Amino acid sequence: MTFHTFTEAQLRNFTESVFLRMGCPEQDAQLAADVLLKSDLRGIDSHGVARLSGYVRLWKKERINATPNVRVIHETPTTATVDGDRGLGLVVAPFAMKVAIEKAKVYGSGWVAVKNSNHFGIAGYHALMAVEQDMVGISMTNASPLVAPTYANERLLGTNPMCYAFPAGKYPPVIVDMATAAAANGKLEIAQRANQPVPEGWVQDLNGNTSTNPNQLKEGGSLLPLGSDKDHGSHKGYGLSATVDILSAVLSGANYGPWAPPFVAFLEPAANPVGEGLGHFFGAMRVDGFRPAQEFKDHLDNWIERFKSAKTVDEDKKVIIPGEPEYNFELERKVIGIPLIDVVVKDLNALAEGLGIAGLPA
Amino acid sequence: MTFHTFTEAQLRNFTESVFLRMGCPEQDAQLAADVLLKSDLRGIDSHGVARLSGYVRLWKKERINATPNVRVIHETPTTATVDGDRGLGLVVAPFAMKVAIEKAKVYGSGWVAVKNSNHFGIAGYHALMAVEQDMVGISMTNASPLVAPTYANERLLGTNPMCYAFPAGKYPPVIVDMATAAAANGKLEIAQRANQPVPEGWVQDLNGNTSTNPNQLKEGGSLLPLGSDKDHGSHKGYGLSATVDILSAVLSGANYGPWAPPFVAFLEPAANPVGEGLGHFFGAMRVDGFRPAQEFKDHLDNWIERFKSAKTVDEDKKVIIPGEPEYNFELERKVIGIPLIDVVVKDLNALAEGLGIAGLPA
Repeated sequence: MTFHTFTEAQLRNFTESVFLRMGCPEQDAQLAADVLLKSDLRGIDSHGVARLSGYVRLWKKERINATPNVRVIHETPTTATVDGDRGLGLVVAPFAMKVAIEKAKVYGSGWVAVKNSNHFGIAGYHALMAVEQDMVGISMTNASPLVAPTYANERLLGTNPMCYAFPAGKYPPVIVDMATAAAANGKLEIAQRANQPVPEGWVQDLNGNTSTNPNQLKEGGSLLPLGSDKDHGSHKGYGLSATVDILSAVLSGANYGPWAPPFVAFLEPAANPVGEGLGHFFGAMRVDGFRPAQEFKDHLDNWIERFKSAKTVDEDKKVIIPGEPEYNFELERKVIGIPLIDVVVKDLNALAEGLGIAGLPA
Repeated sequence: MTFHTFTEAQLRNFTESVFLRMGCPEQDAQLAADVLLKSDLRGIDSHGVARLSGYVRLWKKERINATPNVRVIHETPTTATVDGDRGLGLVVAPFAMKVAIEKAKVYGSGWVAVKNSNHFGIAGYHALMAVEQDMVGISMTNASPLVAPTYANERLLGTNPMCYAFPAGKYPPVIVDMATAAAANGKLEIAQRANQPVPEGWVQDLNGNTSTNPNQLKEGGSLLPLGSDKDHGSHKGYGLSATVDILSAVLSGANYGPWAPPFVAFLEPAANPVGEGLGHFFGAMRVDGFRPAQEFKDHLDNWIERFKSAKTVDEDKKVIIPGEPEYNFELERKVIGIPLIDVVVKDLNALAEGLGIAGLPA
């Protein structure tokens, strides 16, 4: 694999130009680019600009509305439902999180369910918006059905990520941002490209047998929930995924379970939808709604120090604080740039050519 | 193993008499008994009256205060922190959930962190209090350190359960109530009693090697997080457990991580506590804060029906709706009674004798 390294500014300009070409208002194009760039900066390469052509394909199929009327359609002082009007999730989600944050400023907490949206990028972006206001940030979304619940031989749930983020003091925020499947689809794709087997417990084949073939998903197999099998708690991964699905889609009026619209444009959404678009769920709670913010941060710093200095099985592997590797990636990539693999560079240049805009800098 | 079956009323009377003997006010004794009985009725035998003598031992060591002044010590319209005053978690937790529910009635949602508490029984009891008000109920607690985070060779976290509960229409509520470890301690205890090996991925030994010996925990080993190992996502189980710990204890001012006080009375709490007692976290959100409650319930019913009728790998194993097996247990045990194993019956009668009260009916 060969890499091409771009500066953050180069990729940001390019990404904005794509969203502008789709007809997004300038502010939306900037915001959507910011969400994708944050993912690349943080080392989550699967969810960054590599996904750009996927969003464009959905727009071409008129499944993404570049000029949506995103609005609150139902609310109480601390809860709301947002209709994303088929907009980019990358734009709809920050709108919804802002609503949650504004409510939290006044009442201590804010909770927003979203329907009629699309893929929202990394969950961590939205949760971090709350952290910057000294709030606990919560963010989740349902997604294309790829995961079979325990005992099932059908894809009924997405990899449905949940994210909880907490502001620390002298350390980076603690950010738990995780798919509720044993392994996210991006990890399978890496194994596919490398032509290597995956560990047992990630996928099952068409007949529901466990398999180490990373291509099973293309051949009618399913991803497995976190826990992999019943003995190891796959019913818990299924339960978490169900929780994300119900909060994001049943609460908001989006499509849930197997009706969740696929991200890939070559798969059509269900013919008999049970709601509108994809669903998300966001929460923001003021830390000082519970105790003085500085006290919380001091204790979270202490928590972090205790876990970082834990006795480990191997001397050379320390306990990792959730969010710290991504924070370090961001520090590094702000300076040295963002490496993209060859196939992504080619894909983005082809995308630009098709849209009649300038490609990536050579 | 021989069983002795008691009616709900028999066990309830006995349990209340124990709490009264400890000096709990009548209302508290009734409530604490109700929490334990709910666990036995729902088939979660590990968390019911089998734990009664554990609570009494903590009381004898003056680590449980039978007449606490449980109170809100910090609040905003939708958030609060409760000081449990070393009371029974079985009493403190319902108090805190009531605060959350009252806030939700007025503002749409309510969120309560608790410090200075003790073991609160099953998480599902408290979450169900919200469900009965047509609210989403959330309930979690930190617990005695037994779990080693990914790469660690130290017990830094409890089995820290999280529970999400949702009201359905014609079906029982969906209740996801799960330890964030690969297997809860109760499952190890069953294997110990039966003298049988456990699956790999539940525990590691003193040196951090995976083991199938259910006694490892007594010999310096640790439980493993949900996901079991890094390849299968144990960092996710660790992240979830950390989330529960931070929300329950860092946010409230309780002891977190390895400082969480042990439930067993023969282990002393940490000499250098970082907070007060054990911590919990509760949430309640009015369903009609997002969409009309009946609409939500109709769609959740549809969700349930779709998952129940899913194609399965084995014809005789259907997809299980979270909370349904426990609901069915409760229907059954309300009628046929609650079976206790011999060793639990003996333990409860010895407890009664020590306290100078009547034992279980013969």
